[in-house]
Amino acid sequence: MFEKLALIGCGLMGGSFALAARQAQLVGSVCGYSRSPASAQKALELGIVDAVAATAAQCVRGADLVLIAVPVASTEATLRSFLPALSASALVMDVGSTKADVVQAAEQALGERVGQFMPAHPICGKEVAGIEQADAGLYQGQQVILTPLPSCHTPADIGRASAVWSALGCRVRQMPPDEHDRALAAVSHFPHMMAFALMRSLMAQPEGEQFMAVAGPGFRDTTRIAAGDADLWADVLLANAREVIAQSRGLHGQLLELESMLQQQDRPAVRDFIARASARRAAWRLGGPQASCDEKPQA
Amino acid sequence: MFEKLALIGCGLMGGSFALAARQAQLVGSVCGYSRSPASAQKALELGIVDAVAATAAQCVRGADLVLIAVPVASTEATLRSFLPALSASALVMDVGSTKADVVQAAEQALGERVGQFMPAHPICGKEVAGIEQADAGLYQGQQVILTPLPSCHTPADIGRASAVWSALGCRVRQMPPDEHDRALAAVSHFPHMMAFALMRSLMAQPEGEQFMAVAGPGFRDTTRIAAGDADLWADVLLANAREVIAQSRGLHGQLLELESMLQQQDRPAVRDFIARASARRAAWRLGGPQASCDEKPQA
Repeated sequence: MFEKLALIGCGLMGGSFALAARQAQLVGSVCGYSRSPASAQKALELGIVDAVAATAAQCVRGADLVLIAVPVASTEATLRSFLPALSASALVMDVGSTKADVVQAAEQALGERVGQFMPAHPICGKEVAGIEQADAGLYQGQQVILTPLPSCHTPADIGRASAVWSALGCRVRQMPPDEHDRALAAVSHFPHMMAFALMRSLMAQPEGEQFMAVAGPGFRDTTRIAAGDADLWADVLLANAREVIAQSRGLHGQLLELESMLQQQDRPAVRDFIARASARRAAWRLGGPQASCDEKPQA
Repeated sequence: MFEKLALIGCGLMGGSFALAARQAQLVGSVCGYSRSPASAQKALELGIVDAVAATAAQCVRGADLVLIAVPVASTEATLRSFLPALSASALVMDVGSTKADVVQAAEQALGERVGQFMPAHPICGKEVAGIEQADAGLYQGQQVILTPLPSCHTPADIGRASAVWSALGCRVRQMPPDEHDRALAAVSHFPHMMAFALMRSLMAQPEGEQFMAVAGPGFRDTTRIAAGDADLWADVLLANAREVIAQSRGLHGQLLELESMLQQQDRPAVRDFIARASARRAAWRLGGPQASCDEKPQA
């Protein structure tokens, strides 16, 4: 149980965290700060925060739990902006989709106090942004990856951070930051890049609009994440550029292979290519192989 | 209202059609035939068909509506197999995902009787196959594209075929076969190819399994269609190879452009690339921009 949550960044991820934390009775009061006063005000109106602070420093004063839910590129400036006001015993976490850059930002901004910061990435989200979309159930049943720093985080630090996410119904994993970034490039960042590129490819065709008018449920699901927030995803792809480019090269290679099989009308090869992909995807379950299968496939 | 529906092919699409047609009181009795006797038997046990025929010819005898729901590559052989037993007034339709090859198959198999066949493509499906997955609601609210032949289909033919799908809750469009195949390559066939290739790219990486263990809802939706049936999708991609390869080239181009922006850490360009994709996808709606059920044939 925490006395006061300071929410730095009042958007979808932060707002959902505040709602879930209240619902789980994990926090007493919630104070919000946003660079956009309108978002903070909206959070107050919606009852997601109890109070609004004029600065990040005022927001964290007296807080024992601080969640920064801002674009990853703003992490360092955000941490610096409230460090002087941060209680020595407060736990600070983020929700950023990349971790190597966030860890570096935290080291730069916090120096010897970097141990107060636990890098965290809940693997969930929505393709719509903003505090109005905040959802108390967003984190329920999802995975959270912590990337603690071996040099400064004790098992107790890790336990305290894990307990926060467990209270919200998450399953917690640990991973080194660079491993996190490689994995997420493969299964999240690059799939977003691919979905953006598919939309742009359609838009670049003279008949693209007519084509999209007959698109069905498969297109709907494949491109859902292409509606993601441009600022957020620009930051993520730029921060993890090397890894997403490597994933893109992998896709180019597989597509070229399949194109060649199609050009040769090599049915056994095409069928085998698809059959292996299909079998692996059919066996995949949200939450990893050890999890209970509460995935609801979309029709 | 039809007296007897002959269902040639007892799988997901055919079984769902039979269930929906019964529910809409569109057909009296349903007779099923499948190359796999087990599937036909299962359809009988599930009450999806009233009777099972030993051959396709026996199945269509006395039927005034025939639905062939078989892999597109089997269309010609299927039509030939029952043509001698087909009533001169029966309406025959398919549900295949490609249309230029299906029209050609129908012309080859049916000759001067090709006017009895109306090529149809309901834009829906599931990533799971088999009669056990049949679902009376599969077609409800979805689009169906008819690709009539100007040389032999009368407005009355088109009206009769449209009425079948309208009765099932579908919205009906007309399109020339080659235009259909170009459009579907762009919004369905290639997205499947892309999803298969993404799975294969992950499987080709030494850490691929670890990566997939942390994949979240975005990955789930983006790759859902990669679990599609290998035989069905091999046929579709091979039949529409030229168009899907053209779409693949389009995606390569967009990905290369984005890779270059990322390599140069050109944030304004990356943000703009994503913002345009995101805005277009956010504005897209299943079923196309207009909700009218009787769209005029395109010029």
